[in-house]
Amino acid sequence: MKRPGPTTAAKVWKVTEDRTREETDQLASEEPMEIRVESGAKSHRETTSLSVTMRTPGNDFELAAGFLLTEGIVARKKDLVRIEYCTDAGVDQEYNIVSAILRPDVDFRADRLSRHFYMTSSCGVCGKTALEAVRVAVRHAFPEDRPHPDAKTISAIPERLRAGQEWFSETGGLHAAGLFDDTGQVSSVREDVGRHNAVDKVVGEAFLNDRIPLSDAILAVSGRSSFEILQKAAVAGIPFVIAVGAPSSLAVAIAEKFGMTLIGFARRGRFNVYAGDRRVVGLNS
Amino acid sequence: MKRPGPTTAAKVWKVTEDRTREETDQLASEEPMEIRVESGAKSHRETTSLSVTMRTPGNDFELAAGFLLTEGIVARKKDLVRIEYCTDAGVDQEYNIVSAILRPDVDFRADRLSRHFYMTSSCGVCGKTALEAVRVAVRHAFPEDRPHPDAKTISAIPERLRAGQEWFSETGGLHAAGLFDDTGQVSSVREDVGRHNAVDKVVGEAFLNDRIPLSDAILAVSGRSSFEILQKAAVAGIPFVIAVGAPSSLAVAIAEKFGMTLIGFARRGRFNVYAGDRRVVGLNS
Repeated sequence: MKRPGPTTAAKVWKVTEDRTREETDQLASEEPMEIRVESGAKSHRETTSLSVTMRTPGNDFELAAGFLLTEGIVARKKDLVRIEYCTDAGVDQEYNIVSAILRPDVDFRADRLSRHFYMTSSCGVCGKTALEAVRVAVRHAFPEDRPHPDAKTISAIPERLRAGQEWFSETGGLHAAGLFDDTGQVSSVREDVGRHNAVDKVVGEAFLNDRIPLSDAILAVSGRSSFEILQKAAVAGIPFVIAVGAPSSLAVAIAEKFGMTLIGFARRGRFNVYAGDRRVVGLNS
Repeated sequence: MKRPGPTTAAKVWKVTEDRTREETDQLASEEPMEIRVESGAKSHRETTSLSVTMRTPGNDFELAAGFLLTEGIVARKKDLVRIEYCTDAGVDQEYNIVSAILRPDVDFRADRLSRHFYMTSSCGVCGKTALEAVRVAVRHAFPEDRPHPDAKTISAIPERLRAGQEWFSETGGLHAAGLFDDTGQVSSVREDVGRHNAVDKVVGEAFLNDRIPLSDAILAVSGRSSFEILQKAAVAGIPFVIAVGAPSSLAVAIAEKFGMTLIGFARRGRFNVYAGDRRVVGLNS
């Protein structure tokens, strides 16, 4: 199998009021990726298919590592022996199957996937039970007053995120997630058709380099902020999230519950602070 | 439990270059909703928890019906006896649990959820196996040359979609999906924090009113188009999709495979045609 790339060429009719012409454009690639986990004592290793996510090929091991961390399957880098593409005989799609090999002593339970929280909830499912599931997976305290950027730095970050995107200008179709410090310095940017995957990729890169919890980091995302984005940030120990788009009610609820800072509508020199205003220089001080 | 609404009030700091002020804003509500299925012969009915989706409260039965249709669980309206909120004693969150009661003779198999296609794929998972899973769930042929809108009509639809959104202007955080005919007439618009949920809601409304397949409909979505959006359109029999944002490679692949029309970047009087150009007046004729 040819290794899939981040973009795919396509013929397209471009229609404007004046004219119609045929061109070749680049699309954001979307391909399924299966994440498998190999776990258990040496005498009886087991392979479990954990998830299939539709993702843009590239940084696949980071995506798998970030997913395993932010979904509560592994907590420490040393729990992971290695990550590899599928090497089973007879499998054609080796680049779409990623296996995470866990240390024999890691207590692996697929039902710990935080998205399964509802199965164990006796009183029905609601925002409160969802927040409780996040609480179980959050293993780090957030620093009270860090990071501590000023308004000018916050305003500059969305443009730097966009500038850090490798494939966006070609395709117009990729979400981005990036990690910044409170002077606005970027440390990494990752792209994906799925915004949750972009977050898993930046978090996974940090996890593989043993930089969790990301207590001094600001996570910036190109779209809206939702339960899922804030959950992933919380589990990675990131105290500060900036989104270019609107937050949902549960995104704000997670930020408030864990003492995180959440900023939305960060564009054209303006932004809104929905939670944790003490970390913004000049607010509430 | 209070019935959750589509918006939630929140205090927010609005920061611009000139000034900082505190205001009360409306956020798009996000709450988990569990979809349960009650199935089997009268003597041994079974309840299965099928899915929890993060959704904006409102049109919950449409969302459940659309999900069951587009994920391949039910195909005909008569398969559904009724949909209801959970009425179990001791459950607090009745408005976040929706039960679909199937006719006793419906052959219900949770493993038919199309998202589980990969579990049964022997050669690994890839775009081709994903398309194959969609093929199994598509039960309708698409009309060759309908709907057949002209460029002016196509250009007008995104603005009409926006005009049909009830909660967007307040929150800035809701995706929309709408059904239109080829004169640009709107038949329904639904909103949700999740774009796949917005599609399930409009499709579910049509399903509950026995209007599947939607062979004459144009589906318009406010965001990008992905595998998931095109899959749902295909299963509902919708031949024509207009997205305000970019398509992914798999979105185009589904449209091509099933002979659907896919339009992207429909904004400011322009649009791109990625597949099925024969349904656009003046193209390829």
